[in-house]
Amino acid sequence: MSACEFESVEKCLESHLPEAELTEVQRILFGKETKKLDLPASAVEAASERDFELKGYRFDAVQEQLRPPRRIRVGLIQHRIVLPTDAPILDQITAMHNRIGELVEVAAMCGVNIICFQETWTMPFAFCTREKDPWTEFAESAEEGNTTRFCQELAKKYNMVVVSPILEREELHSTLWNTAVVISNSGNVLGKSRKNHIPRIGDFNESTYYMEGDTGHTVFQTQFGKIAVNICYGRHHPLNWFMYSINGAEIIFNPSATVGALSEPMWSIEARNAAIANHCFTCAINRVGTEHFKSEFTSAHHDFGHFYGSSYVAAPDGSRTPGLSRTRDGLLVVEMDLNLNRQISDKWSFKMTGRYAEYAEELTKAVRHDFKPKIVKE
Amino acid sequence: MSACEFESVEKCLESHLPEAELTEVQRILFGKETKKLDLPASAVEAASERDFELKGYRFDAVQEQLRPPRRIRVGLIQHRIVLPTDAPILDQITAMHNRIGELVEVAAMCGVNIICFQETWTMPFAFCTREKDPWTEFAESAEEGNTTRFCQELAKKYNMVVVSPILEREELHSTLWNTAVVISNSGNVLGKSRKNHIPRIGDFNESTYYMEGDTGHTVFQTQFGKIAVNICYGRHHPLNWFMYSINGAEIIFNPSATVGALSEPMWSIEARNAAIANHCFTCAINRVGTEHFKSEFTSAHHDFGHFYGSSYVAAPDGSRTPGLSRTRDGLLVVEMDLNLNRQISDKWSFKMTGRYAEYAEELTKAVRHDFKPKIVKE
Repeated sequence: MSACEFESVEKCLESHLPEAELTEVQRILFGKETKKLDLPASAVEAASERDFELKGYRFDAVQEQLRPPRRIRVGLIQHRIVLPTDAPILDQITAMHNRIGELVEVAAMCGVNIICFQETWTMPFAFCTREKDPWTEFAESAEEGNTTRFCQELAKKYNMVVVSPILEREELHSTLWNTAVVISNSGNVLGKSRKNHIPRIGDFNESTYYMEGDTGHTVFQTQFGKIAVNICYGRHHPLNWFMYSINGAEIIFNPSATVGALSEPMWSIEARNAAIANHCFTCAINRVGTEHFKSEFTSAHHDFGHFYGSSYVAAPDGSRTPGLSRTRDGLLVVEMDLNLNRQISDKWSFKMTGRYAEYAEELTKAVRHDFKPKIVKE
Repeated sequence: MSACEFESVEKCLESHLPEAELTEVQRILFGKETKKLDLPASAVEAASERDFELKGYRFDAVQEQLRPPRRIRVGLIQHRIVLPTDAPILDQITAMHNRIGELVEVAAMCGVNIICFQETWTMPFAFCTREKDPWTEFAESAEEGNTTRFCQELAKKYNMVVVSPILEREELHSTLWNTAVVISNSGNVLGKSRKNHIPRIGDFNESTYYMEGDTGHTVFQTQFGKIAVNICYGRHHPLNWFMYSINGAEIIFNPSATVGALSEPMWSIEARNAAIANHCFTCAINRVGTEHFKSEFTSAHHDFGHFYGSSYVAAPDGSRTPGLSRTRDGLLVVEMDLNLNRQISDKWSFKMTGRYAEYAEELTKAVRHDFKPKIVKE
């Protein structure tokens, strides 16, 4: 079986394990069961017609006496590129807009309040090529680009917060950025969050195109909760998740584009660890499929490898939803009661037992070039 | 099936999944395969006679041109208490010494260079009771206690570094600590590492007994590599792992005592995430079994729940060994080539892309009581 064909761990376990053992395995691997959401038949039908996977799950919280539940629904979209990478750029963008439009409409039917797309969703993940031409032409203004305008329409039409990760061009300074635009359900651009950590690994030297973000750890207060966006490679950096949480994030989205044997076993670990460590929800989104490029690049490749999808949501109690498939476009709808964050925080108290003042001191010392590590020898 | 009886996820998958699918599931869940170690027949036989599980695995690294391999073997021991919790204290300690002696002897037969025991290994994990009497009598001097002397003998006899987590009494200041004593293979006490983060959760309010450690993030340079000890609850704190790594740790041990539905799904995530994020090896050790206490404590319990064992080792490339069982005493022998740390670091470069100077500044601001979080509103 090729790694590209294998659909998902979760489905495989369900097909082969006896029920009692399946329950134990799921409990240990995935935590407290996330119940399936009842989604409208019309949405299920539309997803089937439009050829994408639709899954829905629910994280519950205890009913408190003084606070009403804060139940909201997030949507995660993973998708292939629509046209070949050598199609005219405007055609590629338009095709992607249309495809996303189809998925977001179904998200709206499912009552989604906040939707997030994958990293640089309007384009192939061409940064492996090291070519600037034509890929930088995909870059758009975060505030006034066509893609932002398209997302503003979606936001207003469906009363939905839209997180739209794009390749950003900042005309003023002639700079490119890897940026998530956050659009309020009113249709206004609430702000943007730039990718903080830039990979230099294998074919992924993205600093050929854009540098480390300068927007810090901004959190966006939306009508449906406080959200933040930790783009792709930032998921490997626990401090990045942490600092979004310290700024108040209740849900941290992680729009990504990732492939390969080294990355895939980490995928189910990192966002989930962040949800646990920071008493918040995390949403990991990866693109799907293999993208072929005309020119051969490093190591005699015409493609990057298989983007393995597997988008999922993790909760502060260590539980997680099953992932979307490794092979198909998909929409994951997840209902969460945001009260769970404080409930788990009150139980585990990582923020109170964190001794952050001491880490601030230690880290301040450690980043000096003349730092002396604390090593004891015989 | 009761949660106490279920032996392990890994064994269950091996029993039920067809081979091709098992390979894919293992790859995605556990990363690159860890090969089984050939252990001496005499060791296998001794383990069987002494009624404990013995497993061995190997993490390989690429052969470099300029550095020879740095292959070493670590041993992780998980065990039940030997006598009932109301047996005379000295008898309990002696029985535990004897049991550990049996396991360490087998570790020596397997060529183990560094061994680590579970948290407060000489005693039941009685901190749930909130009683001081008689439990604080288990506390010993880290430098001169009987348990340290016992471990020094083992270290000399087997030319083995011994990490011995105990309840420490510091006579001078009349304080108790949760402390790992690190003993060189020469038999000398190299130093100690105190538990940095103290849980206050459910029955686990350990600050009834001891407070946050004052030994910071000490790393111990041994003949077999630079090691550190992150005790139990510290595994929930990514900054704790991180700071040991920043001080140079190549292997971080996490001796623990943990139970329960909230903890178990996190167990396989946290130490493994730390290995990934910090480009190092991590060794997670948990005790086994249910410990009964005579007096009823909080919530009408006479026990804490089932300590689910499942000790394992994780590598910087995201791979991990299978765990020891959830139900039996065990010794996990793991060979690792420490060159893998730098190889993965050179590949992924998390330390270079970490932007730590900026986090030091942000964290320094964030710990002030008048910190203003960066929240954008419409």
